[in-house]
Amino acid sequence: MTGLPALSAADGRVHARYWLETGDDPERTAAVIAGEQSSGTFTAVPGETPALKERSGARVERVHVLGRVGTPSLPTRQRAASYTQCVLDLSWPLANFGVSLPNLMATVAGNLFELRQVSGLRLLDLAVPQAFVDGCPGPAFGIAGTRALAGVARGPLVGTIVKPSVGLSPAETAETVRALVAGGIDFIKDDELQADGPHCPFDERVRAVMAVVREAAERTGRKPMVAFNLTGEVDEMRRRHDLVLMQGGTCVMVSLNSVGLTGLLALRRHSQLPIHAHRNGWGYLNRCPALGWDFAPWQTLWRLAGADHLHVNGLANKFSESDESVIAAARAVLAPLSARNPMAAMPVFSSGQTGLQAAPTYAALGTTDLIHAAGGGILGHPGGIAAGVAAMRQAWQAAVAGVPLTTHATAHAELAQALEVW
Amino acid sequence: MTGLPALSAADGRVHARYWLETGDDPERTAAVIAGEQSSGTFTAVPGETPALKERSGARVERVHVLGRVGTPSLPTRQRAASYTQCVLDLSWPLANFGVSLPNLMATVAGNLFELRQVSGLRLLDLAVPQAFVDGCPGPAFGIAGTRALAGVARGPLVGTIVKPSVGLSPAETAETVRALVAGGIDFIKDDELQADGPHCPFDERVRAVMAVVREAAERTGRKPMVAFNLTGEVDEMRRRHDLVLMQGGTCVMVSLNSVGLTGLLALRRHSQLPIHAHRNGWGYLNRCPALGWDFAPWQTLWRLAGADHLHVNGLANKFSESDESVIAAARAVLAPLSARNPMAAMPVFSSGQTGLQAAPTYAALGTTDLIHAAGGGILGHPGGIAAGVAAMRQAWQAAVAGVPLTTHATAHAELAQALEVW
Repeated sequence: MTGLPALSAADGRVHARYWLETGDDPERTAAVIAGEQSSGTFTAVPGETPALKERSGARVERVHVLGRVGTPSLPTRQRAASYTQCVLDLSWPLANFGVSLPNLMATVAGNLFELRQVSGLRLLDLAVPQAFVDGCPGPAFGIAGTRALAGVARGPLVGTIVKPSVGLSPAETAETVRALVAGGIDFIKDDELQADGPHCPFDERVRAVMAVVREAAERTGRKPMVAFNLTGEVDEMRRRHDLVLMQGGTCVMVSLNSVGLTGLLALRRHSQLPIHAHRNGWGYLNRCPALGWDFAPWQTLWRLAGADHLHVNGLANKFSESDESVIAAARAVLAPLSARNPMAAMPVFSSGQTGLQAAPTYAALGTTDLIHAAGGGILGHPGGIAAGVAAMRQAWQAAVAGVPLTTHATAHAELAQALEVW
Repeated sequence: MTGLPALSAADGRVHARYWLETGDDPERTAAVIAGEQSSGTFTAVPGETPALKERSGARVERVHVLGRVGTPSLPTRQRAASYTQCVLDLSWPLANFGVSLPNLMATVAGNLFELRQVSGLRLLDLAVPQAFVDGCPGPAFGIAGTRALAGVARGPLVGTIVKPSVGLSPAETAETVRALVAGGIDFIKDDELQADGPHCPFDERVRAVMAVVREAAERTGRKPMVAFNLTGEVDEMRRRHDLVLMQGGTCVMVSLNSVGLTGLLALRRHSQLPIHAHRNGWGYLNRCPALGWDFAPWQTLWRLAGADHLHVNGLANKFSESDESVIAAARAVLAPLSARNPMAAMPVFSSGQTGLQAAPTYAALGTTDLIHAAGGGILGHPGGIAAGVAAMRQAWQAAVAGVPLTTHATAHAELAQALEVW
């Protein structure tokens, strides 16, 4: 955001970058935050010796002033004539918490957002050293494993979400899946609202859907990937995972903010399937510019914990997120966490998507290592689902070839028809 | 906030109340949110029949307009001439998700904060029906169980936090605890930054500290409660809990935002000790008035999941939170979740606390069912720790008796001395 050098954890410490606004002197506020989040507290403590501070203190690596404003971004009891906005880089010795994602979180995103000196604080970036990366499970399948299981060697996985989100019976869900599978789709997911309610119990839904999927796989030689939402308590998730696996399923889905880091870690340690990670609730972490989380540090934690696929919204989406933010999120998900252990996950694009988003998405990312989920963009095709899926693939072929959609459509009937409705 | 009737789940549905700001017609936005969070989506879906909507749709129970503003509270791509602020009540049939805390969370706090029609959204309150309350574990010890284990029949538990937060060795931690225990303190907790780093491994710390605590208990017949921070992965937390139990410990502590609902649930299902729940990170969920969470609905989820103690900051604290907000949080923690199954937790007051906060805290709550943690308020006493603890107790006796501190101090030397430094 500022031309500052990217964070690096090459010194073996954990580094975090924040956007900070303070009515106090920014260097002093930086020192308070560093103290609060390591060996210090509001007042001097007898046991906080220089040796202890040297060993365990957080270090202020950078305070880069961006400017000043007259009004605080967040309500504050500490009024000032002006408020300084700056970039703050902090670092911690790994020994303060060890290789532990939950304790890393309490350190870099704990009791600092509500400090009285702070009228705005946002975690912009996070860099963890090689030893931390290597000690985390990370995605077990990632891009290559997902492609292998879905039988999609190149191009994006073309996907969709079962709708209505909630309310269908297991048999109705299976019928919906039957039509999608017959149309040649690569990927199907539950809505995040569909879990294990009494009208559509998880077990029955999995059995009914997988009967359809297995039948299709036997016929076509390719098994579409279905992400079953197993969000629940740890033992429930493990049991549901085992059922999906036994039924021949190839993916499980979980709502990250509902289960937490420890829930995802427990699932990852148990799972023999890719984990499709849903970020619902992300808005409350992200949408106030002066508070919370950028996507880059947030997704780092979940990839370290084992997410194989991560939702990033989509270009021209129906939410409030800008295209720029969507692309930054997707790039973050694909960026290596370390050279030796990149742990890339597959970005999942969704929300109001059609083939029209193929070219700009590809232009921004330079890869097709992604899941592109469309609802109306596929189901709304006048020729039916198979034609809708074909049109999505044709749009991606055009994007990769650098050919305008209208040109490509002259030789591809499904795409031509789709362009009338997209 | 508005004189509206309190939420009730007496109809067996889950009810949530939001503060909503929208540039669109509020009734239409309410319908969009209700649709998005249940059977609907952005566009009509073939399978969304009237019968399905009746069965599974969320219901708009109330749209109460508060006023209009000219500028959106959050950045939005959907500009309007004015933005309406209102209270929105929604309800869902329990059957959409069943008795599942993680899936309840995805429903009431999922993909709605970033809807394009929304320029502000905050979850104000949550009411879950009796069947949901009864199906959740809730606190296993709560107030009575905590008092019994700590040997404190009446008055608040007077507590403190081991400082420096991080950097002490196990032996140094035990020496700190030795002094506190000798001073007659009721409750000691780890800082949330102190978990299981290589300089202070959890196991060694517990063994060293509990040797001191057991020795004191044998001498005095009362065992101070020590909350060991076992935040970590599920299996780590279970193993650490077992060690604390075996060593005669009486409490474990966990960082809620670090482990997530599923982590707390797993710990609760396993635990034979009270769970001290730390809310670090709460600031990023709460501090933007137009976004995120009020404390009332948030603490409801964690109490249902099994938190016995919940942090609420303290009056005249060193953070940005107002006294009004602190008291509202403490009242929420003490309020019954249902008449049959109240699941009250113990509020934990901390941050810059001394005996000066006893009277206003008691006046606001009318109970001493709480933990009052002070650092300098105890350690800074000129007569030492024992005098500091005595002064805290004397301040609470005065508060309960309705006697001014200065009056009470005439017959209580430790309080009199404390009043010179508090």
